[in-house]
Amino acid sequence: MRNNQMKKIRLAGLTALVILLHSCSVNSRKQSANAIEKGIFPKGALGPSTTFTGKAWNTGLVPHDSVYTTVIGNVYFEPGARSNWHSHPSGQILIITDGVGYHQIKGQPRQTLRKGDVIKCPPNTLHWHGASEEVGLQQMYILPNTDKGIVQWLNPVSDEEYKGLK
Amino acid sequence: MRNNQMKKIRLAGLTALVILLHSCSVNSRKQSANAIEKGIFPKGALGPSTTFTGKAWNTGLVPHDSVYTTVIGNVYFEPGARSNWHSHPSGQILIITDGVGYHQIKGQPRQTLRKGDVIKCPPNTLHWHGASEEVGLQQMYILPNTDKGIVQWLNPVSDEEYKGLK
Repeated sequence: MRNNQMKKIRLAGLTALVILLHSCSVNSRKQSANAIEKGIFPKGALGPSTTFTGKAWNTGLVPHDSVYTTVIGNVYFEPGARSNWHSHPSGQILIITDGVGYHQIKGQPRQTLRKGDVIKCPPNTLHWHGASEEVGLQQMYILPNTDKGIVQWLNPVSDEEYKGLK
Repeated sequence: MRNNQMKKIRLAGLTALVILLHSCSVNSRKQSANAIEKGIFPKGALGPSTTFTGKAWNTGLVPHDSVYTTVIGNVYFEPGARSNWHSHPSGQILIITDGVGYHQIKGQPRQTLRKGDVIKCPPNTLHWHGASEEVGLQQMYILPNTDKGIVQWLNPVSDEEYKGLK
């Protein structure tokens, strides 16, 4: 009787531990997705559907001026979201601070982007960037020599192009 | 006897829970300090003692070239570490990605820097930057128009200057 009671108590303790560990693991995954969405900067304003597919949130960090001639900002792409095809008169540098995403220069294969990656797109070159299907993307953009202009927008990225099939 | 045994088991369970929660809290603080040090980019190379006080680790992200004329990198300043006084021919933009630090433009008060802050220092203007006394600093630097040059180094920041007393 005493042994049975002890066994029951041990079983209950073990069950509680398993539940606790499972709950920690689920919370950890949720915190990870929330942390990507939270990012370093404010989430900013929703990008217009004329230039983005899905939800992309833009925060301007440095506006154009004649001293630095550099525009800097951050975009959080929700999973599946991406920019239209577009180009920059002086090119663009992307710095990935969290999450997973894609970048493609017209005529080249789609690249996968991860935290810490630094990507360049040369002047007047068509490209698009966005999040992966399952995980969002936090990316800073740096536009140099903005006295020559900022951006020229083109058509949306098709599902086929987004999936890297084209 | 059975009640006493149950009480002992409950007390042991409660003690284990308190230890577990305390251990989680201590781990969380350790993870926080480690996370600041780990950062987004590789830690890089230790900055020379001729231009830094304390330990500052530099990773180059974008080198100078004639297309982007922009130099980008990341510095992790350990607590207490700071740059010498210096200036940049085309100015500098700092982006704080984690931790706590300071920035001072010559003749102006010392500013405190935190995650998400964006700081500009105009062309040919003396400044220094570094970590706070207790918490390290992760900061990206962006140098525009590097066809005009990169940096001019001067003397170390004194303890009095570092503490904001001067």
